[in-house]
Amino acid sequence: MANQNAPIPNCIDIENAFGLIEKHINRTPVLTSRSVNAMLGCSVYLKCENFQRVGAFKFRGATHAILRLNPNEAKCGVITHSSGNHAAAMALAASQRGIPAYIVMPENAPEIKKKAVTGYGGIITFCPPTQADREQTMLRIKSQTGATFIHPYDNFNVICGQGTAALELMQQEPKLDVVIAPIGGGGLLSGTATYIKGRFPHVKVYGAEPKNADDAFRSLRDRTIYPSVKPQTIADGLLTSLSPLTYTILSQHCNGILTVSEQSIIDAMRMVWERMKIIIEPSSAVPVAAIMENAELFRNLRVGVIISGGNVDLNHLPWQG
Amino acid sequence: MANQNAPIPNCIDIENAFGLIEKHINRTPVLTSRSVNAMLGCSVYLKCENFQRVGAFKFRGATHAILRLNPNEAKCGVITHSSGNHAAAMALAASQRGIPAYIVMPENAPEIKKKAVTGYGGIITFCPPTQADREQTMLRIKSQTGATFIHPYDNFNVICGQGTAALELMQQEPKLDVVIAPIGGGGLLSGTATYIKGRFPHVKVYGAEPKNADDAFRSLRDRTIYPSVKPQTIADGLLTSLSPLTYTILSQHCNGILTVSEQSIIDAMRMVWERMKIIIEPSSAVPVAAIMENAELFRNLRVGVIISGGNVDLNHLPWQG
Repeated sequence: MANQNAPIPNCIDIENAFGLIEKHINRTPVLTSRSVNAMLGCSVYLKCENFQRVGAFKFRGATHAILRLNPNEAKCGVITHSSGNHAAAMALAASQRGIPAYIVMPENAPEIKKKAVTGYGGIITFCPPTQADREQTMLRIKSQTGATFIHPYDNFNVICGQGTAALELMQQEPKLDVVIAPIGGGGLLSGTATYIKGRFPHVKVYGAEPKNADDAFRSLRDRTIYPSVKPQTIADGLLTSLSPLTYTILSQHCNGILTVSEQSIIDAMRMVWERMKIIIEPSSAVPVAAIMENAELFRNLRVGVIISGGNVDLNHLPWQG
Repeated sequence: MANQNAPIPNCIDIENAFGLIEKHINRTPVLTSRSVNAMLGCSVYLKCENFQRVGAFKFRGATHAILRLNPNEAKCGVITHSSGNHAAAMALAASQRGIPAYIVMPENAPEIKKKAVTGYGGIITFCPPTQADREQTMLRIKSQTGATFIHPYDNFNVICGQGTAALELMQQEPKLDVVIAPIGGGGLLSGTATYIKGRFPHVKVYGAEPKNADDAFRSLRDRTIYPSVKPQTIADGLLTSLSPLTYTILSQHCNGILTVSEQSIIDAMRMVWERMKIIIEPSSAVPVAAIMENAELFRNLRVGVIISGGNVDLNHLPWQG
């Protein structure tokens, strides 16, 4: 892929991104809980991107990438073929700049995801549910409209935007020992690790991943990018595999990937709902589960956790079978 | 009842209460949401007592009442016959002062409520599930132990403690036009109205109540305290009737009671969960439902809402039938 020679962001790029997007995003709160800390044996600080616009950190990267377009690019709009939080984030960020967002979605995508995108003003084109169809449809719309493709994570500006959550977290809780973020394609963790290691090199940065979707863990261990092959996990935001850019960044800046069981993810999610009264999605529970499963590693430390989002189907909760 | 000649708190009493309890309680955040404001046609500021210790505002009143005991009273402990959030709050507040909390509970109380009380160190005595048995058992334990009875709302110090949520809210969002709180026995609304009308007399204060449990609405309309007779409502924190003290305060300071349907309560609760990613209990959704049902009354205003708590059985959500 061409991106192997793409520029690699550093912490100054993330600070510049923050300056550009700050007034467009929510400064999300950092929450902590006596009872959760007692249960986990350390002090946990949740950076609540579930309170971000569109309910997920993805709005940071999408906003940044869209604000970086020059006026000629911007007027043709943007395009992507994600169907999750990135699609909703692109739709809202584009509408904030007054430009079109073209979203290619498999025709069998859940109703709730279609509604999120159209609710934010995105223009959906449906396609048959294969990767080849998605890409073909995307290329067709792109050539018809001149829209700029914005990859959900293999993109310099997206990664810089995602890193601003860690920047805010360190402003809000400057004395952390460790920061953990979930890892799917690696955009959030790449931005997080780039910022933290650039400005706070003594702070450890871990990724957290479902055991059932441990391609990032294996990729970094074996120094090659493994594809993510139909993983079965409740953490549906973490199904994708690393990209050349995120692989390169994480090889350099990440202290390790912790993998967790499905049961731990459910337990962690329920604990946060019950004890902290906030709604987090399963992907966000993965780093909390990593603390549960690695109590000794985090004992008595001050642990920052990036809560990636809170978009959950309230009709189907994982503990209800 | 003796309380007809009891002293009536004023806003200075609430400020004094705040000085006493401030370091023991959580300063809960105030949250707002663009999308919820757009749906409701006004700017809503939620004072998130679901993030209070024990998950409810009740910890404020319990802490204040317990800190006001003199050392001789304190060493004998406190007693109550609530089985909900007040019982959990009493148990934790008492344990913070290092004194016993005796909680009288019907033997058929839900497991989740028993666990909350024992988890915070409360000493439960079970009794048959009638009001007479509760009171008899309470009097017996009280005479055996010398514990001080702390009523969940017909109590000067409890009301002053509950009013500190409104005090913080006005510090955090000084320019509100209206404040709404749910009303059951009236402790929260009495503290809220006392503080607001004392310090911000131009700000309107409304109570919000389920139509199916509208005894407070009728009591204030007809100038007499109606008992609450087995009301059928999902808002299980609002089943109790006014007391002499709360009736007196609300007659003087409350601008009105808004009653809402069960369906509105469910819709409001779900909207807050989905859009704001916070877990609120049905009783907390009642004032949000009151805004939904009275759009013209609140159009374009800045509306503070006291979110009473977030203690919900996650296995049984109201929209799941």
